[in-house]
Amino acid sequence: MKQSQLFTKTTKNIPKDELAKNAELLIRAGFIHKEMAGVYSLMPLGFRVIKNIKNIVAEEMEKIGSEEIIMSTLQNKEIWQKTDRWDDEKVDVWFKSQLKNGNEVGFGWSHEEPITEMMKSFIVSYNDLPRFVHQFQNKLRNEIRAKSGIIRCREFIMKDMYAFCATDEENMNFYNKTTEAYLKVFKRVGLGDITYVTSASGGLFTDKFSHEFQTICETGEDIIYINKEKNIAVNKEIYNKENLEKMKMEMKDFEEKKTAEVGNIFNFGTNKCEQMGLYFNDKDGSKKPVYLSSYGIGITRLMGVLVDVHHDDKGIIWPGEVAPFDYHLISLAKTDEEKKEAEKVYEKLKQIGKEVLFDDRTNKTAGEKFADSDLIGIPVRLILSTKTLEAGGLEIKNRNENESKIIKIGELLH
Amino acid sequence: MKQSQLFTKTTKNIPKDELAKNAELLIRAGFIHKEMAGVYSLMPLGFRVIKNIKNIVAEEMEKIGSEEIIMSTLQNKEIWQKTDRWDDEKVDVWFKSQLKNGNEVGFGWSHEEPITEMMKSFIVSYNDLPRFVHQFQNKLRNEIRAKSGIIRCREFIMKDMYAFCATDEENMNFYNKTTEAYLKVFKRVGLGDITYVTSASGGLFTDKFSHEFQTICETGEDIIYINKEKNIAVNKEIYNKENLEKMKMEMKDFEEKKTAEVGNIFNFGTNKCEQMGLYFNDKDGSKKPVYLSSYGIGITRLMGVLVDVHHDDKGIIWPGEVAPFDYHLISLAKTDEEKKEAEKVYEKLKQIGKEVLFDDRTNKTAGEKFADSDLIGIPVRLILSTKTLEAGGLEIKNRNENESKIIKIGELLH
Repeated sequence: MKQSQLFTKTTKNIPKDELAKNAELLIRAGFIHKEMAGVYSLMPLGFRVIKNIKNIVAEEMEKIGSEEIIMSTLQNKEIWQKTDRWDDEKVDVWFKSQLKNGNEVGFGWSHEEPITEMMKSFIVSYNDLPRFVHQFQNKLRNEIRAKSGIIRCREFIMKDMYAFCATDEENMNFYNKTTEAYLKVFKRVGLGDITYVTSASGGLFTDKFSHEFQTICETGEDIIYINKEKNIAVNKEIYNKENLEKMKMEMKDFEEKKTAEVGNIFNFGTNKCEQMGLYFNDKDGSKKPVYLSSYGIGITRLMGVLVDVHHDDKGIIWPGEVAPFDYHLISLAKTDEEKKEAEKVYEKLKQIGKEVLFDDRTNKTAGEKFADSDLIGIPVRLILSTKTLEAGGLEIKNRNENESKIIKIGELLH
Repeated sequence: MKQSQLFTKTTKNIPKDELAKNAELLIRAGFIHKEMAGVYSLMPLGFRVIKNIKNIVAEEMEKIGSEEIIMSTLQNKEIWQKTDRWDDEKVDVWFKSQLKNGNEVGFGWSHEEPITEMMKSFIVSYNDLPRFVHQFQNKLRNEIRAKSGIIRCREFIMKDMYAFCATDEENMNFYNKTTEAYLKVFKRVGLGDITYVTSASGGLFTDKFSHEFQTICETGEDIIYINKEKNIAVNKEIYNKENLEKMKMEMKDFEEKKTAEVGNIFNFGTNKCEQMGLYFNDKDGSKKPVYLSSYGIGITRLMGVLVDVHHDDKGIIWPGEVAPFDYHLISLAKTDEEKKEAEKVYEKLKQIGKEVLFDDRTNKTAGEKFADSDLIGIPVRLILSTKTLEAGGLEIKNRNENESKIIKIGELLH
């Protein structure tokens, strides 16, 4: 894409009420636009990052057998009353409105209930199990205070997946598979080394339980305790002497870390399906409730955590697989011939399948272009100038390194 | 995809209040699930069709230079007050709710205002124009009565595109380009022959105007008048003697047809940007308002129109480019050897890049499988059975034809 055509611009101005580093950098670089507190829209650069994250997550979910669907935002009161989660006293993040006939409707902050209800149309016998479905959904939550930039929003994209199983074993099998798939996702997006699976509420030693995926991050809202050597992490809720003793460890074995929750997995057992009336006929003819587990990854939140973790004082440093482009090609061409050469490199890189942001702007200084490039944070910067052409090609530099070198144009294309 | 794994099932039952053919067939075949009146979720098959339609539309919009973004569902009251469109008396489809602090928020039924407001951060001078952006947005509209299945919903996916231009000429240039791009889209999705561009409100002979793309469709809500020979269509609003005289035509030259609106394009001139305060500094230093035009295609509606147009009494007949799969491979294999052969064909078709729904179910009769196949409507049906293998390969039949023939497996793979 030609930067002269990109409608967003970098800016030094950020909204006065914006305190979070992720939102500051994403707004300054033109990835997101603030609509109101806790509500951001995605500009072309941000749209590209989210698309990459979604692709990675979708791939890993499909690999473990999940099918993609998309549920509605508008929510049916009667469905949520079955689990007593329509009541604002029980769930305090509902946005609600009314149809013209006066009937109340809600706006989806979660989709366990409607997906379970929908499955009642399709799950009848043991033959229909197990079933795994996921969606990338725009969730709406009426948070008292939106904070931490795009880490905790009133509107955000979430991948939520649901497993419907006939037995506890089948359910646990998928639970374990998903844990592996999630770790792959966090590795691919560039958070592998600093993301831990922690046991959360329900605890380590009961059969109703949940796990969280926590990424070490100075701006995170959570606290976990880790033992790097043994690769064990415990979240604050269950970090006490009694639990540690059961693990044959002591408090001195753990380090306290600030973290952001990037994923969570819940095992509901048969509880939710009993409430909702989702049963199946087993081989022996008996009627049994379905096991349900649910699996979330905050997609827009992940973009925020990535920025909080991967940046320096000049801007963002995107990991390769999620970056909006592979190369930032900066033209400092002066003559028509040099300009043609820059165009040629741009076209050839596209031909070999590379995503390129081509800074072809003629009204910016070299300094301005370099500053924009550092702020936007594409992994590899290429410069084409009189000097680099004389030296035999282009200057190549990785965003996360200081050293640059000259590379022949031909070399780049192989 | 293996049909034994697909969680949806075909059914003969449809919701009692469902009158529209499109929703009836889409529900019976498992493409959509009804959440409430006018609200449907997309099941895996429907998700695939919508993805294909979105890809076609995105490709054609990118070709004419538009950049993809995604705005928020939550809407800021103050922005809509600028054009006096917050008031329920002026706009009667708002869903509204309140933040915890009592401030009102709306839910996006359209995005002209927030996109124009957002552009104020990026458009300053003539250098920044023209700019074209589009999004695939989940729109929420509080319709008094949702009807016509997924043709008129309370929640639906729309592609909306916006052109911001410096001059009327630039604006008209893009308007004309988009008309061409839209005709390409409707051709690619399989509605080319029966979709007409009609002049709508504002009329043929003023400079404020709009056009609609209307598809001939028995279940449509609109009426247009067409002259096939001259390829001219006029919508009801402006179909009167006076206007026809200006076109040197008479009422007897036109045929009345029921249609569904599948796209629309509006020219706002500088009106909207003046209201919203979007101005730019022109070359001569003067401050001028930006020209705006907007361009919609109803994505989920398009799926409904496709079904209303392309079906028979057995089910849906998907046009190739939007079909959920290229092939429906039906295994009637009896022996292990035949089953292996069916698996092999499935794997090989996938290897050459074909999308295949593989009916590997062992608990269905041949008749049930054929009925499901006709209902789901994948363009090409392949049958593998003892009989077809003996005859030299597979039976191949197009969904929209009655004739079948035997094709060698090798031939199919070339």
